[in-house]
Amino acid sequence: MTDQKQTIEDLKKVREQAPLIHNITNYVVMNSTANALISLGASPVMAHAVEEMEDMVGLASALVINIGTLSEKWIEAMHIAGKAAKKKGIPVILDPVGAGATAYRTNTSKSLIDEVKPDIIRGNGSEIMAIAQAGFTTKGVDSTASAESASEGAQELARLSGAVVSISGKTDHITDGRGITKIKNGHHLLGKVTGTGCASSAITAAFASVNNNLVDAACEAMIIMGTAGQMAGARADAPGTFYAHFLDALYQINGEQIKKYWQHDG
Amino acid sequence: MTDQKQTIEDLKKVREQAPLIHNITNYVVMNSTANALISLGASPVMAHAVEEMEDMVGLASALVINIGTLSEKWIEAMHIAGKAAKKKGIPVILDPVGAGATAYRTNTSKSLIDEVKPDIIRGNGSEIMAIAQAGFTTKGVDSTASAESASEGAQELARLSGAVVSISGKTDHITDGRGITKIKNGHHLLGKVTGTGCASSAITAAFASVNNNLVDAACEAMIIMGTAGQMAGARADAPGTFYAHFLDALYQINGEQIKKYWQHDG
Amino acid sequence: MTDQKQTIEDLKKVREQAPLIHNITNYVVMNSTANALISLGASPVMAHAVEEMEDMVGLASALVINIGTLSEKWIEAMHIAGKAAKKKGIPVILDPVGAGATAYRTNTSKSLIDEVKPDIIRGNGSEIMAIAQAGFTTKGVDSTASAESASEGAQELARLSGAVVSISGKTDHITDGRGITKIKNGHHLLGKVTGTGCASSAITAAFASVNNNLVDAACEAMIIMGTAGQMAGARADAPGTFYAHFLDALYQINGEQIKKYWQHDG
Repeated sequence: MTDQKQTIEDLKKVREQAPLIHNITNYVVMNSTANALISLGASPVMAHAVEEMEDMVGLASALVINIGTLSEKWIEAMHIAGKAAKKKGIPVILDPVGAGATAYRTNTSKSLIDEVKPDIIRGNGSEIMAIAQAGFTTKGVDSTASAESASEGAQELARLSGAVVSISGKTDHITDGRGITKIKNGHHLLGKVTGTGCASSAITAAFASVNNNLVDAACEAMIIMGTAGQMAGARADAPGTFYAHFLDALYQINGEQIKKYWQHDG
Repeated sequence: MTDQKQTIEDLKKVREQAPLIHNITNYVVMNSTANALISLGASPVMAHAVEEMEDMVGLASALVINIGTLSEKWIEAMHIAGKAAKKKGIPVILDPVGAGATAYRTNTSKSLIDEVKPDIIRGNGSEIMAIAQAGFTTKGVDSTASAESASEGAQELARLSGAVVSISGKTDHITDGRGITKIKNGHHLLGKVTGTGCASSAITAAFASVNNNLVDAACEAMIIMGTAGQMAGARADAPGTFYAHFLDALYQINGEQIKKYWQHDG
Repeated sequence: MTDQKQTIEDLKKVREQAPLIHNITNYVVMNSTANALISLGASPVMAHAVEEMEDMVGLASALVINIGTLSEKWIEAMHIAGKAAKKKGIPVILDPVGAGATAYRTNTSKSLIDEVKPDIIRGNGSEIMAIAQAGFTTKGVDSTASAESASEGAQELARLSGAVVSISGKTDHITDGRGITKIKNGHHLLGKVTGTGCASSAITAAFASVNNNLVDAACEAMIIMGTAGQMAGARADAPGTFYAHFLDALYQINGEQIKKYWQHDG
């Protein structure tokens, strides 16, 4: 169970250490992910050239692999970087964007899980279920897309892959295969801005770089995302201005806000 | 002639159906286009890998092909996706960004029109004239870049290509080759933010996915863009804050605003 | 020494001439760089296909080569465009993002300097020192990353490469190898938004397109960046809203603000 005090301490650690988070991520969210990490206090780098994957991983404290805008060269870089990160012993977070939408994405996700063995898989309900059904579950999972309905498949996926699985939704579900932790924080406008899921994955990487308990790290990241969303939602009621205030909130969030919104929903 | 009531109804349809708009678009505007579509109520996906083009088109309600940052692999994907979309019967919108600036862009636009046969071509006056002159007009067109001066070439282009042509400018001109509809809505700061033209194309795709009358769909999209721009212009007087308010306006726009700003200019 | 009156006049020239700035830049900052240039009054184009490099350079008033998200094809395009720009006689600005972080980036920077001979190299202290150490200095340079500590290496780099070197930091240092000009303008939140360094390089290109004195052009760009940051800092105290106000400030900045903030720091 995630602890309030620990969350506050780990946020402080992120800001003190400014961990370098290496992102191989999609074109759509590169800018917004970089800004979310900087606002939080971490240091982002985006790099995808196979020629520099090992060097860059060598500098990083965590690696994010996000398959949002795939192509062959990028998949190659993802495998190289992922293996280098595992060898180095830094956490690898996989965001299987669009798994289930196309066979290409489902298969790429599956192959990254099989070969890289990411430490945390963070996606929405549909993506997690698609991966679970692609070979990481022993029974069928419900095909509706809520975090709730995906949680059984997620536990199977966690057990068979060895990764912590983090499903974002109205309530977030985090599991290592032995029980579910639910995070209620969040705001509906987070779903009206592109890339907030991807930012969640990057922020999960930042917390995983300062907390070896990966269930806790994944939970803390979703608490921070959700709380910052709630702070922004108190200042703006539509997506454009909300997003500016969301970055402000990531920059300003502290123990007081974490306590104020602890396990609030909406 | 585009109808006020129809525009309001089609906006409601976009929000109810949340059509998936598949964008093969340029790096510069991927984030802002996705946010414009989400704010409006549609569902964006950006994907360009040839390996998943047919799968992704199979899920989509419309396809946007935008040539803003070209390269060979992307052109190949554009052709594959375009043909799959036409086969499936969903509308294809071509945004020939920078046609006329380089031969590569003009030729790519021409080849996409010849082989894919897009349903709507949306660009600025210079781009439309460049394409018209590249083989879709029987006479010379004026080389100045206003929407007015391009409208004759646009009508020829529409007749010879079979596409509805939508020229954005201070006054937008939409034609199927048999007369011009003019849309006066707009705001000068829309020209001071990158990607608002590209967002127009994506929003045109959203309306084309709910209204088979493609002239009407193209007009409705420009009305929504222009009206949202006017709403934002009432709240901000410089590009940075204007853009945040523009996304807010796309999220908030309703029948009342559409009526209030109907055929206003500036 | 950069002159206040000249800075104001050159800003006017940028707005009157709206020079086309061709950017081969990284995915993270394409949108924000385009918006910074538009807000300032220049015209951005982002293009990287080898097939259109010479055509696009042929239209441009300056070229920016930014290595932030490298890959082989892009490096090839950078060399082609760089050589075409030099042949045409327009200024070439190199932003060696991440030089020193990986050998790939350091070597690419070195090879671009050797073969293209950029007119201005703009980076932070670490990047400039990494390049200087990679063969453009006759003695070791201090390995700390401040602009101050890099300034000796920067002067050597300037003398050996023939480029003006512009180091951004709390105080910016600009040198042609024969003395240093320091610019104090700036705001700490500029370091909390991704891509402000890259925007500096693009704005340097805009000023270099209207002022042949490249030291002055580089200084003017940093004054405008810093002053706009200070204007934004007076309106916002966190990165998300700050960035919107920064773009507003680039749009609004005039002689009055330039005078008001002249050589202010913080």
